[in-house]
Amino acid sequence: MVDEPHPELSRLSRRTALRTGAGAVAAGAGMAALGTGPAAAAESGSSDFSGFSGFSADEWSPKPRGKTMMGVPFEPRATVRVGIIGLGNRGASMLPLFLAVPEVRVTAICDINADFVAKASAAITKAGQPAPATFTGSDHAFEKLCRRDDVDFVYVATPWEWHTTMSLAAMRGGKHVGSECPIATTVADLWELVNTSEQTRRHCIQLENCCYGQNELRVLRMAHEGLFGELLHGSGAYLHDLRELLFSDTYYQGQWRRGWHTKVNGDLYPTHGLGPVASYMDINRGDRLVRISSMSTPALGLADYRAKHVPAGDPKWRERYVDGDVTMSLLQTERGRVIHLVHGVSNPHPYSRLNHLAGTNGVFEDYPARIYLEPKHSGDRWGSFADFAGYDHWLWKDVGPGPGGHGGMDYLMVYRLAQTMRLGLAPDIDVYDSAAWNAPFALSAMSVQRGGTPIPFPDFTRGAWKTPHPGTDSPKPG
Amino acid sequence: MVDEPHPELSRLSRRTALRTGAGAVAAGAGMAALGTGPAAAAESGSSDFSGFSGFSADEWSPKPRGKTMMGVPFEPRATVRVGIIGLGNRGASMLPLFLAVPEVRVTAICDINADFVAKASAAITKAGQPAPATFTGSDHAFEKLCRRDDVDFVYVATPWEWHTTMSLAAMRGGKHVGSECPIATTVADLWELVNTSEQTRRHCIQLENCCYGQNELRVLRMAHEGLFGELLHGSGAYLHDLRELLFSDTYYQGQWRRGWHTKVNGDLYPTHGLGPVASYMDINRGDRLVRISSMSTPALGLADYRAKHVPAGDPKWRERYVDGDVTMSLLQTERGRVIHLVHGVSNPHPYSRLNHLAGTNGVFEDYPARIYLEPKHSGDRWGSFADFAGYDHWLWKDVGPGPGGHGGMDYLMVYRLAQTMRLGLAPDIDVYDSAAWNAPFALSAMSVQRGGTPIPFPDFTRGAWKTPHPGTDSPKPG
Repeated sequence: MVDEPHPELSRLSRRTALRTGAGAVAAGAGMAALGTGPAAAAESGSSDFSGFSGFSADEWSPKPRGKTMMGVPFEPRATVRVGIIGLGNRGASMLPLFLAVPEVRVTAICDINADFVAKASAAITKAGQPAPATFTGSDHAFEKLCRRDDVDFVYVATPWEWHTTMSLAAMRGGKHVGSECPIATTVADLWELVNTSEQTRRHCIQLENCCYGQNELRVLRMAHEGLFGELLHGSGAYLHDLRELLFSDTYYQGQWRRGWHTKVNGDLYPTHGLGPVASYMDINRGDRLVRISSMSTPALGLADYRAKHVPAGDPKWRERYVDGDVTMSLLQTERGRVIHLVHGVSNPHPYSRLNHLAGTNGVFEDYPARIYLEPKHSGDRWGSFADFAGYDHWLWKDVGPGPGGHGGMDYLMVYRLAQTMRLGLAPDIDVYDSAAWNAPFALSAMSVQRGGTPIPFPDFTRGAWKTPHPGTDSPKPG
Repeated sequence: MVDEPHPELSRLSRRTALRTGAGAVAAGAGMAALGTGPAAAAESGSSDFSGFSGFSADEWSPKPRGKTMMGVPFEPRATVRVGIIGLGNRGASMLPLFLAVPEVRVTAICDINADFVAKASAAITKAGQPAPATFTGSDHAFEKLCRRDDVDFVYVATPWEWHTTMSLAAMRGGKHVGSECPIATTVADLWELVNTSEQTRRHCIQLENCCYGQNELRVLRMAHEGLFGELLHGSGAYLHDLRELLFSDTYYQGQWRRGWHTKVNGDLYPTHGLGPVASYMDINRGDRLVRISSMSTPALGLADYRAKHVPAGDPKWRERYVDGDVTMSLLQTERGRVIHLVHGVSNPHPYSRLNHLAGTNGVFEDYPARIYLEPKHSGDRWGSFADFAGYDHWLWKDVGPGPGGHGGMDYLMVYRLAQTMRLGLAPDIDVYDSAAWNAPFALSAMSVQRGGTPIPFPDFTRGAWKTPHPGTDSPKPG
């Protein structure tokens, strides 16, 4: 049955055969070669399923404006001078972590809210550092921060709609930049970040703190030590009941975040789930993401919450929520591995990022953490993940957790970023990782709109994904 | 962004636009109407994504040969006379359960293995029933059993490749029939079962024991009582490490089951996972399955097991395994709900059918069972499923578990089948349920071969799916 197109497909109308025929035959033959579907297609040199999904991602790809930034080291420096744009919930909670990391100075800060700027400035001087340059009063005050010559790295913690604009301004101002998730919401913006990073020789980093979680880094080390055998599939998610925060009049400046649920039907927050799984599978380091198929449930949760908690006549009643309560996606890699990605923030559900990884030797699942690996485990009984503490990443053995939120992973992310900048190493996460992990925001919306049709991933590395190189599984500097 | 095709899609080549254009606009507008993707498309009267997937399931649909069997009652009878075809691992373990159910007589048995037939015949007389008619000695001995006039119901427990042939022979011989999973492996065979059931007025039943599990029936009752609110998504799976059994020289007659892994790359066993979730969502009872997108991992597990356990020179070394170790599918319903379906039997993994259900009020997950439902639960802490024992199905409160395997669900399935036949009720599971639950066997293989392109489900009910009627959530007979 795998040696030619499925016999029941071959009965389809000629119109259909014309539409997909050549691709179907090529792919069918490709799969027959090894019988592993797209994996076989990959090994036979073809993972082009555009005959099925309807188009090729090449149609999106702009001309490069510079050489690759893959593996390019930071210039070494004794002190890392940081400028922060956005001092709200996230920025204000990250400031003490930047101040806690050795040899980091926060030299410039910006927020449209002058009170936030004043509070942050006081915290900086109270920590024994010189008073920072401050910027406020306009939506574009950040541009002045990006033009200063006493800033090496700009940290962006503003509403999503500003992440790309501010990251581009930072790089064009000669600064390396790191942004909160998501760094961009369209394929065009992801390409512009890649091209601008290559053109300006500045690094552009999706600061994905979940990649620095203790469980995530332990699983990463175990996967790279071969404990899972050949990797086959994984799962990642952002399942976080945000309804109360989304409807707060004050939590999100101008209630910006709820607005996205009136604009896009897709996975609005892919990187917490995808970043760690992509790291396990060496995405852009020997494998790459090639396609995504997404389906969204009806959008009922936010309207249901509003009906229960928002008084009649409130302007929120004029909103129409279009983002499906849960968006599920299947992603496939060039080597044929499959990733299950889930987004859901609008219904009651205990917090979970799923964080699953499976290979020919066994499987890990998180929430709660449990593991089953041959030959240690047998009889369908899950084993204890604590038994594998010896595989902890050096950041957790010798540095972490450190102060701050999210179990310490925020601090370790900032510590490692500053370390790579001081020592002149390549960053753990580069612009290509950032683009690949964020692409499902836009690609899932396209796939949902087309009834789950697989949408191809652009190759933001332009072929360099085949090159093995370290990422968050970094060696400890000697 | 939802009010017209995704802006980045609109930049695609004209060739592509022509290929998908009309459908894209229609669906885009359909979704804009309610902003819930396919759900909105459904409410706007269109769930035709054939412009995306490349074809319509109508191209498969044969002409009907009779009226619907939906809701058609069995003719009442005092005693249920059962003929059994297949007395191997499964058939031999089910025989004592048929013998244990009140007013059931096993009047005829058949197997190509004469020893199996003799052992079964002895068990029947030992249970105090008359010696059954016995059939053996040829692959087609079952045809004689199907022609007898002292059999009301034929139970088929043979290798997969025989299920459809034997079910058709039973119906054409005037018997109601129930088969082990899967009842068919192609869309054409599923249609032939539907048409033959309608033509002969005999019921054709996928005997899906997992639909009678205690957890499954409790969740079903809770879902229908509205505890989950509006249903949004669910998950089902067959994650069962079968490597040792698949490579046994004796367990599967002629080692037939391993053979399927050399023929098909897709979900070979969908009904254990899909049957219960389809019941929660009233599939064919107010909603229906409309499309499936599937991706398979590489096929490595069986070859890995062979390398470790099969001596060189064994004929097994001539086999090439093509079924991906894990096939993941996303299914969408007419009302826009999403089902995550997983198949994996070739790697180390603790047994799981996932068995998840989520709605606007909360979520249930199995393996292990845990629940989170507003307003009872809060603070991201899972609650105890035992607290909901009051919702147990009457089969578990008043009848079960009874004797036999799989925690009692096998017995309850047979008990309920015999009860509906004695009392002249409609069966819990009809030929339309059976066809819908089994369709992913063939449809997933097509989707995998086309790189995850969504494949439309045929509507085996020919429009009758909109009619609410009870299934496994049956009222207790008065």
